[in-house]
Amino acid sequence: MKMNNIAYLDNSSTTRQFDEVTETVADLCRKTFGNPSSLHDLGMDAEKVIKSAKNTVLESIKADSGDDFIFTSGGTEANNLAILGYVRPKLSRRPHIVTTKIEHPSVLEVFKTLESEGAVCSYVGVDENGIIDLEELSSVLNEKTEFLSVMLVNNEIGSVQPIEKIIKIAKGKSPRAKIHADGVQAFCKIPINVKKAGIDMLSISGHKIHAPKGIGGLYIKKGVTLKPFMYGGHQQKNLRSGTENPPAIGGFEKAIKINMENFDAKAARIKELRNMIISELQKIDCCRINSGDNENSVPSIINASFMGIRSETLLHALEAEGVYVSTGSACSSNHPELSHVLSAMGYDKKRIDSAIRLSMSLYTCEDEVKKAVCAIRKCVEKLSI
Amino acid sequence: MKMNNIAYLDNSSTTRQFDEVTETVADLCRKTFGNPSSLHDLGMDAEKVIKSAKNTVLESIKADSGDDFIFTSGGTEANNLAILGYVRPKLSRRPHIVTTKIEHPSVLEVFKTLESEGAVCSYVGVDENGIIDLEELSSVLNEKTEFLSVMLVNNEIGSVQPIEKIIKIAKGKSPRAKIHADGVQAFCKIPINVKKAGIDMLSISGHKIHAPKGIGGLYIKKGVTLKPFMYGGHQQKNLRSGTENPPAIGGFEKAIKINMENFDAKAARIKELRNMIISELQKIDCCRINSGDNENSVPSIINASFMGIRSETLLHALEAEGVYVSTGSACSSNHPELSHVLSAMGYDKKRIDSAIRLSMSLYTCEDEVKKAVCAIRKCVEKLSI
Repeated sequence: MKMNNIAYLDNSSTTRQFDEVTETVADLCRKTFGNPSSLHDLGMDAEKVIKSAKNTVLESIKADSGDDFIFTSGGTEANNLAILGYVRPKLSRRPHIVTTKIEHPSVLEVFKTLESEGAVCSYVGVDENGIIDLEELSSVLNEKTEFLSVMLVNNEIGSVQPIEKIIKIAKGKSPRAKIHADGVQAFCKIPINVKKAGIDMLSISGHKIHAPKGIGGLYIKKGVTLKPFMYGGHQQKNLRSGTENPPAIGGFEKAIKINMENFDAKAARIKELRNMIISELQKIDCCRINSGDNENSVPSIINASFMGIRSETLLHALEAEGVYVSTGSACSSNHPELSHVLSAMGYDKKRIDSAIRLSMSLYTCEDEVKKAVCAIRKCVEKLSI
Repeated sequence: MKMNNIAYLDNSSTTRQFDEVTETVADLCRKTFGNPSSLHDLGMDAEKVIKSAKNTVLESIKADSGDDFIFTSGGTEANNLAILGYVRPKLSRRPHIVTTKIEHPSVLEVFKTLESEGAVCSYVGVDENGIIDLEELSSVLNEKTEFLSVMLVNNEIGSVQPIEKIIKIAKGKSPRAKIHADGVQAFCKIPINVKKAGIDMLSISGHKIHAPKGIGGLYIKKGVTLKPFMYGGHQQKNLRSGTENPPAIGGFEKAIKINMENFDAKAARIKELRNMIISELQKIDCCRINSGDNENSVPSIINASFMGIRSETLLHALEAEGVYVSTGSACSSNHPELSHVLSAMGYDKKRIDSAIRLSMSLYTCEDEVKKAVCAIRKCVEKLSI
């Protein structure tokens, strides 16, 4: 794989790890390899890595230092821990739990499982921008609703949910409802303030922000009680058994710090690249932009349909030009059903069948974007004949 | 942490990653960073890393190439997947499941959870060498027994279970019983032949064999059906949702290959070091060796009590000399209850309270062993006064 001559615009699937992070991880593997549960100082050195990273995470999402953060193997496990961990112990009273129709499978599949176990589930729809229907949300909530799970940024189209409004409505209807936010595509992409928003649990993942794969975690507000769904050596306050991974955790911390440094300037640069892509794509006749406008979309994700061209055909044509994009999300691309996200937004089969996603990261440069746009124009022209 | 002047004999807690593995992982992070679920060749390159590693694992445990191996975040998750995944779907008929009293918490805690959910559990005892009581095993098994979980090598004392005999008895009493073996401390330490032994599922972990932390997996014999206990994007045949970690998986493969190369010579070297340690420790009056003899113990683990000296006191005294050991297992060392393993072996409180574990790895050298033995002699002398 030659890296220098490609345009990698599939960063919402996964990013290339920061070189600095690779260095940090390698260094920790050499020097701080102890088991954090060990009583000696090699264990304590490893434990310190975890504590420091925990504090960095809590700061980055404006949480209280007394809140908790549990490191997991990634976003999927964090979503499972939040939802199974909070809802399953309450199954005997058939709890009412709410989410949206455009969540990631690691939320929707957990909801379906809990539904089969007795939970009463509501799935709220979204508008044509992929924004949750606040009226429908309000109408499904009642004083017995115990749990709401909403993603902050959608992985396929990049819509940013108005989380503060959502939580205000939810807590207004059911003060006891706990709010879980899937922040996997939002973390380090948009500012997150869990305290101000009123988020009780927040899932994040490393490999979407140039940190190692296999690491992520769940923020848990002080006072929120979960039960583990995996059992063993009682690590991490018995919420996540299994030897912790200090090198990956230290690498995660390093990546967060790089992301957070000059955050506004970095975000502005991505926004500029986004605008450049969109204005170029709009010149292509058959192109329809599926992402919402700049106001309610994260800059790094652009979803667009090229009417009449199957997305997989375009994907492979672009691949031949060294341009990497995705059809929908990577998680679902092995399962060629119609995107549940674009379906929920009201698009028809033809538009959904021709949708591709371009997603950027801090490593994305202007040259890549130019190369991608140029290749899209060329491939679309060729495939339209 | 200066690495050059210490004796690290806590390798059963965790090992230092091979430098070659660190290189492999870093290289994969740079070049093979795609999401294996992506449809383009960056995704397929990542998928190839997984397939190659899977084959290497299957070969290393003499499995059929048609068998399966699911990568998990480590041994704890693998044990949970095997036991929860096989037993939970059968809970409505109150299945009889069997394990031993000396299993790792990631087996025992899962059994306790299933017991609270309706399973009927039997916990078989062990003899003074930490070997499962075959008569008791035979007496608790019946034709309705559905599942047996046995560790191949105990993490605290290193006893090696006679797995072929155990499985012969189990399948004789209950032909339908599936056999899960926790191979975390056995993998790459003793030869494993799942086919010959009749093992249906085998858990292994990376960080015990100089591979990265945060990676492990579960061998599943063809035809054995499990249900996942974590839900999401349906990766790995829907048995383990969550983006896979190709760099860690590739690092795991590299570590397995290094471990397997000249396996016999490597094992013989560790055995020599073990004999050296034991013969030196036996010269110390208050020392009692808790591990069984060479015949039924893995060479890399030595458990010994120094009567009259609390294990934690000795651990910290040794730490001051640059010698790293553990009291019991790292997993339980944050929970200062009496070791359930040594208790099951019939030792009294005094002997258990003074037990330490020395554990070696392929990185352990003669100098370290000499330094450790010398420090133990010195510390025991000082603390005995």
